[in-house]
Amino acid sequence: MDVKQPSQLPQETIEKLIRQSHEAKTHAYCVYSKFRVGAAVLTEDDRVFTGCNVENACYNLGICAERTAMSKAVSEGYSNFKAIAIASDLEDQFISPCGGCRQFMREFGTNWEVYLTKLDNSYMMRTVDQLLPISFGPDDLSMKKVIPDEN
Amino acid sequence: MDVKQPSQLPQETIEKLIRQSHEAKTHAYCVYSKFRVGAAVLTEDDRVFTGCNVENACYNLGICAERTAMSKAVSEGYSNFKAIAIASDLEDQFISPCGGCRQFMREFGTNWEVYLTKLDNSYMMRTVDQLLPISFGPDDLSMKKVIPDEN
Amino acid sequence: MDVKQPSQLPQETIEKLIRQSHEAKTHAYCVYSKFRVGAAVLTEDDRVFTGCNVENACYNLGICAERTAMSKAVSEGYSNFKAIAIASDLEDQFISPCGGCRQFMREFGTNWEVYLTKLDNSYMMRTVDQLLPISFGPDDLSMKKVIPDEN
Amino acid sequence: MDVKQPSQLPQETIEKLIRQSHEAKTHAYCVYSKFRVGAAVLTEDDRVFTGCNVENACYNLGICAERTAMSKAVSEGYSNFKAIAIASDLEDQFISPCGGCRQFMREFGTNWEVYLTKLDNSYMMRTVDQLLPISFGPDDLSMKKVIPDEN
Ligand SMILES: [Zn+2]
Ligand SMILES: [Zn+2]
Ligand SMILES: [Zn+2]
Ligand SMILES: [Zn+2]
Repeated sequence: MDVKQPSQLPQETIEKLIRQSHEAKTHAYCVYSKFRVGAAVLTEDDRVFTGCNVENACYNLGICAERTAMSKAVSEGYSNFKAIAIASDLEDQFISPCGGCRQFMREFGTNWEVYLTKLDNSYMMRTVDQLLPISFGPDDLSMKKVIPDEN
Repeated sequence: MDVKQPSQLPQETIEKLIRQSHEAKTHAYCVYSKFRVGAAVLTEDDRVFTGCNVENACYNLGICAERTAMSKAVSEGYSNFKAIAIASDLEDQFISPCGGCRQFMREFGTNWEVYLTKLDNSYMMRTVDQLLPISFGPDDLSMKKVIPDEN
Repeated sequence: MDVKQPSQLPQETIEKLIRQSHEAKTHAYCVYSKFRVGAAVLTEDDRVFTGCNVENACYNLGICAERTAMSKAVSEGYSNFKAIAIASDLEDQFISPCGGCRQFMREFGTNWEVYLTKLDNSYMMRTVDQLLPISFGPDDLSMKKVIPDEN
Repeated sequence: MDVKQPSQLPQETIEKLIRQSHEAKTHAYCVYSKFRVGAAVLTEDDRVFTGCNVENACYNLGICAERTAMSKAVSEGYSNFKAIAIASDLEDQFISPCGGCRQFMREFGTNWEVYLTKLDNSYMMRTVDQLLPISFGPDDLSMKKVIPDEN
């Protein structure tokens, strides 16, 4: 579980991305969970987009920090990602993306890097594929199906 | 239904916001619906944040343009909104926000302005409250409840 | 706002549906919000399906009571609805559906009845269309669009 | 990847559950994706609840088959699960749950069984934990946090 993953990123870049994910947390709108989350996604062209969780009175209509960061990048024309860092206020535990965010990441590739961090900036790295194995993706919707006539 | 609403915004500001919502559409990631949507939200301090729809192979994990724009603003520290404009490629019909986005808007107030537009930049304005009457909001979760002991 | 709506349902049917929505509440899985919600949907063939909210540690992946009840009906082959009743533990306030649920209702028609209730079984009735005016629905996705070539 | 997992279920039970997931598919409301999915969840008390995907004109407000089946069970008072089978019309590929559904499963335990099937009823079994490693769950929200005063 704790096998060191070889990253393609310089250590300096990783550390900066993690710092940015912690800064992003300060804008969290989390009046319901009181659980602040920040994220910073690094694009192939080395731009960084940050996000935070934005909750809603109808809990299930809120948006996670990771999805905020990624949709922000996409809305500016960037959808090729190298890495994403995720930060929370948990001291003793690496904050891990929810399944919904893993699926959202996977839409843009299975081989990029996800940095799960602790409050002290220590981290664990996994690829999207490691976090969402045997995943369902864009190609699967167009696979050969056998559908009965009447539907 | 088509009663003219008095806007608090200068005509020039409205028209610019609508143009920005149409531009935002160009980044839409909508490989499944092929339905491009753009949005531009205007904050109290006159900043504009734009968004587009970002779809997913698991359809229900995508994000609408309006929510992208608003979560982007929140993630940069802006959560007081004056207006949002929504744009699509529909020629004959004002594009209208889905119920999920109306609820997301309502989290940040009921009295701000929503501009539903057509491809030719013509528009219809409604307040959030008009689009989501008798709404459930942040205050309701803390209202007096009578809950049985065992739960 | 409080204009009496003429219902198409017998008073007895309405009262029974409301009782069922309150009973449905007892199964709510709401460890995060502690806010129990129940719903009971009545189909055209007079069958009733009940639902409750089912929350998730990742708040935005939970499901509302209303959507649980409707998806349950659909999964059993019933998708023509006459009415839905919604119940919570709020004493002084009619519990109102979130925007996401209003949109989910609207998928199955705009003219059916929604009963917002209080703990004492008193209620307010609105049609789906009244709760989600100028709505975006199934037909809109196939309307005439003008899309640039390159997309 | 294709290591045989030892199941705790009798072969007959597995095969019946898979058949039920295929039957559940027939009620799918999937007018947008045309991609039918069915699911059947087996509770600790050996009851089976089935579900299908229920889509929405606003794509992201739809519900997956797996979540329909599980929320149905919860709404009837059953939230301890042994296994879930998932079925689609894909001929050459095991249908796999999206990240959102994996997270929804995980809410009710990490060690139960997920059957990914093909049209010919062949299957692959994985535990929830294998499909969503290093997951974020109910306990994590109450872990020790260090939050600044002003938030
Ligand atoms: Zn998430
Ligand atoms: Zn929307
Ligand atoms: Zn709802
Ligand atoms: Zn799913």
